[in-house]
Amino acid sequence: MLCYYLPMTTTREHSADAEPSVHEHHSADRAAAERKEPAYVVTEKAVMEKSEIARRFLETRARLNTNVEKANNFLVKRFYNIDHNAYLDGALPAKTKELMGLVASTVLRCDDCVTYHVIQAYRLGVSRAEQEESLNVALVVGGTIVVPHLRRGYELLEELYG
Amino acid sequence: MLCYYLPMTTTREHSADAEPSVHEHHSADRAAAERKEPAYVVTEKAVMEKSEIARRFLETRARLNTNVEKANNFLVKRFYNIDHNAYLDGALPAKTKELMGLVASTVLRCDDCVTYHVIQAYRLGVSRAEQEESLNVALVVGGTIVVPHLRRGYELLEELYG
Amino acid sequence: MLCYYLPMTTTREHSADAEPSVHEHHSADRAAAERKEPAYVVTEKAVMEKSEIARRFLETRARLNTNVEKANNFLVKRFYNIDHNAYLDGALPAKTKELMGLVASTVLRCDDCVTYHVIQAYRLGVSRAEQEESLNVALVVGGTIVVPHLRRGYELLEELYG
Amino acid sequence: MLCYYLPMTTTREHSADAEPSVHEHHSADRAAAERKEPAYVVTEKAVMEKSEIARRFLETRARLNTNVEKANNFLVKRFYNIDHNAYLDGALPAKTKELMGLVASTVLRCDDCVTYHVIQAYRLGVSRAEQEESLNVALVVGGTIVVPHLRRGYELLEELYG
Amino acid sequence: MLCYYLPMTTTREHSADAEPSVHEHHSADRAAAERKEPAYVVTEKAVMEKSEIARRFLETRARLNTNVEKANNFLVKRFYNIDHNAYLDGALPAKTKELMGLVASTVLRCDDCVTYHVIQAYRLGVSRAEQEESLNVALVVGGTIVVPHLRRGYELLEELYG
Amino acid sequence: MLCYYLPMTTTREHSADAEPSVHEHHSADRAAAERKEPAYVVTEKAVMEKSEIARRFLETRARLNTNVEKANNFLVKRFYNIDHNAYLDGALPAKTKELMGLVASTVLRCDDCVTYHVIQAYRLGVSRAEQEESLNVALVVGGTIVVPHLRRGYELLEELYG
Repeated sequence: MLCYYLPMTTTREHSADAEPSVHEHHSADRAAAERKEPAYVVTEKAVMEKSEIARRFLETRARLNTNVEKANNFLVKRFYNIDHNAYLDGALPAKTKELMGLVASTVLRCDDCVTYHVIQAYRLGVSRAEQEESLNVALVVGGTIVVPHLRRGYELLEELYG
Repeated sequence: MLCYYLPMTTTREHSADAEPSVHEHHSADRAAAERKEPAYVVTEKAVMEKSEIARRFLETRARLNTNVEKANNFLVKRFYNIDHNAYLDGALPAKTKELMGLVASTVLRCDDCVTYHVIQAYRLGVSRAEQEESLNVALVVGGTIVVPHLRRGYELLEELYG
Repeated sequence: MLCYYLPMTTTREHSADAEPSVHEHHSADRAAAERKEPAYVVTEKAVMEKSEIARRFLETRARLNTNVEKANNFLVKRFYNIDHNAYLDGALPAKTKELMGLVASTVLRCDDCVTYHVIQAYRLGVSRAEQEESLNVALVVGGTIVVPHLRRGYELLEELYG
Repeated sequence: MLCYYLPMTTTREHSADAEPSVHEHHSADRAAAERKEPAYVVTEKAVMEKSEIARRFLETRARLNTNVEKANNFLVKRFYNIDHNAYLDGALPAKTKELMGLVASTVLRCDDCVTYHVIQAYRLGVSRAEQEESLNVALVVGGTIVVPHLRRGYELLEELYG
Repeated sequence: MLCYYLPMTTTREHSADAEPSVHEHHSADRAAAERKEPAYVVTEKAVMEKSEIARRFLETRARLNTNVEKANNFLVKRFYNIDHNAYLDGALPAKTKELMGLVASTVLRCDDCVTYHVIQAYRLGVSRAEQEESLNVALVVGGTIVVPHLRRGYELLEELYG
Repeated sequence: MLCYYLPMTTTREHSADAEPSVHEHHSADRAAAERKEPAYVVTEKAVMEKSEIARRFLETRARLNTNVEKANNFLVKRFYNIDHNAYLDGALPAKTKELMGLVASTVLRCDDCVTYHVIQAYRLGVSRAEQEESLNVALVVGGTIVVPHLRRGYELLEELYG
């Protein structure tokens, strides 16, 4: 989830005190060649202008991430880096993985995570029907305990696609 | 949980594009004959006048359900219908099932769901002592991680019964 | 859940180094007067003769409890005592509470706990239809992730009621 | 998850006492037209010959489902039917949904469910790299608590693809 | 977790209608002699002056606990008492146990509980590095689903230690 | 959890295709200087001779890890490496972190993980009383749903310390 990714830890300038860039230095690993940054068709700025829910979420996340960055905790940075890598284009396209992140977030009932993955999938050009079918899988696997999160998810879908 | 039930999907007018009414068309199923709508002794309106927590919850739920209804997603509607059926009077009375829904919601730590089932049980004439004993089972099964939800549950109990 | 209850900690002989018997010494508490041991209509022995699944579960539990008893851990004993109290007859009958324990165990997906509460409910005279309706509430709240446990639960129901 | 699907409830012969076939009778629903059964490229029989883990799982599932079918519980049948519908080809292809089911099952840590969805995805022609990337999303979202299930998942992948 | 501890239930004045004080009356239990109240190096008042997040949390908790106290539910009081005992100095120091409570609360994703244990650990003299390493264990065990709670935890750490 | 650590990924020989060794190359990170491998006082071999439960667990884990290693999945290797780092000696001693891993594993109800951390803590010289107090925190936070895992944990404690 890019959501949890601190920009500073993977820019070229910080790579000295972070780990080497993933898809360049690990060519020996299977599938490494396939990993690449996804191509967003909508900017984060455009999302924030379209949806008030998205705007509030993204601003709060940015503010809270400032503290986490400042702490400069080695293990947290490593973890964010792995997280970033898990959602890159690879054997599966990034948009499929973002929808998988959405399903996982929904069955684990994390509102912030649902909001994040709906936004990410939207930015990658996922249709509303695809988002709804992903939420359907989560609803069936997770049961009615998932419904309050589903309802809030649909509110965001309405702001983005409605 | 009626909480998750979209009224439009089960009214007689919509039954054409929904599934057949449960207790009429499935007489071959064991227990089907027993399923029937519970008899509420308190209206939703009366609950909203008595408790500010209940009022805010029910209004937000109604507002969010509008989006879900509008989406008209087949699988979500089916799921809500099953949910509705699970809490009808049957081999076990509806009030027992609402309290079971309360226990499940509490151990799974869903505030909205706890609020919903406390309200439903109250409307069916469940006493405060019965609500508390249900919460006790949930507390013992679920441990102290349940306590923040228990505290908020007691706040609602106080508004309804206090 | 009697399941987790070490017999030795509540017999009269051990009450000196345990806490005072609940329903005698706390008469000031609301509802305390109502708490009393449930009346089983089937013995544990009869259950073990009827169901192989139940027999294996109860024997393993008994064997493992020996170690826990031997450890004589103060906090564990207190916890087991609270657990025992949560399922006594009170404002709600013991059989309702055992079914609530079954619902909680099912949505939290604990096979041992499901087995235990099905047995307890059976011993208290609960019908198969009541057990199934309880499992239905759990299925709807918990979703398909609950199904493997449901299937194993039905296997036990078949041995006990079939 | 077909895993939880009782064949008898959706065959044409039984549709009289079950609900109407989904994609025929609900044409008013958005996306309904798209739902259709997925095309398996590997039979269940072939899977069982290739993998001992798969064989044991599928046989146990079949045996346990016999009890559930015999019980003929209305709500369980309805639930299985919804479950079946959630994984059909639609706006998203069935193989993507099976992999979503795999991710959900892994973060919720259900071995039977992981086994089921790995088999389903395999039968739909999903590559090993796609299965591993799905498990990677689940590992990152779910953390090391997921690892024991990941290890068992890799054992099955090895039997199927190795 | 003291968080869940109702002061009235363990003061000497109420011990008559509660259970006997733990470390005096159960000398036969192993380790009982070791249990004692931890020595706080920072008062709750000082924490509230330093951190706005802590102040709001502690005030809300106090307000909600009023209802729970008023209910005077026997089982809830017993449960709070056990909870209190679990975090006393013993074979492990209280500060280690509070950090364990923090790890458990983080992997179970309970914001109120995270806030509570961070405050408790701070009051017992735990360093920021120790808090962060505890959160790291939780992050690795629990995965990215834990991150929203981690972010909010770091906000509190910043207010307390920054 | 060392449990999930594939030896090959962090030996000096493999560091070329893995990431740089953590405590040497990231000196700019706070606390990095403190991370170091813990000093075991009991070998894995000795544990396996003492406990049959431990022996079976460690052998199965080794066998299953062979498949995971063979897959050579980049992200899994990175994840195992982070996991390894989370339990090193640092601001908190390794033995405290292993007990935190035990608490997290117990409240999340993962038998393999409980077994692993009990063994790790034992190998680091943790006493039985410290293990039991850790399990007590988990029991109180997690409730009776934790009890089946607690019982199995006590069985292992008995084999190791009894």
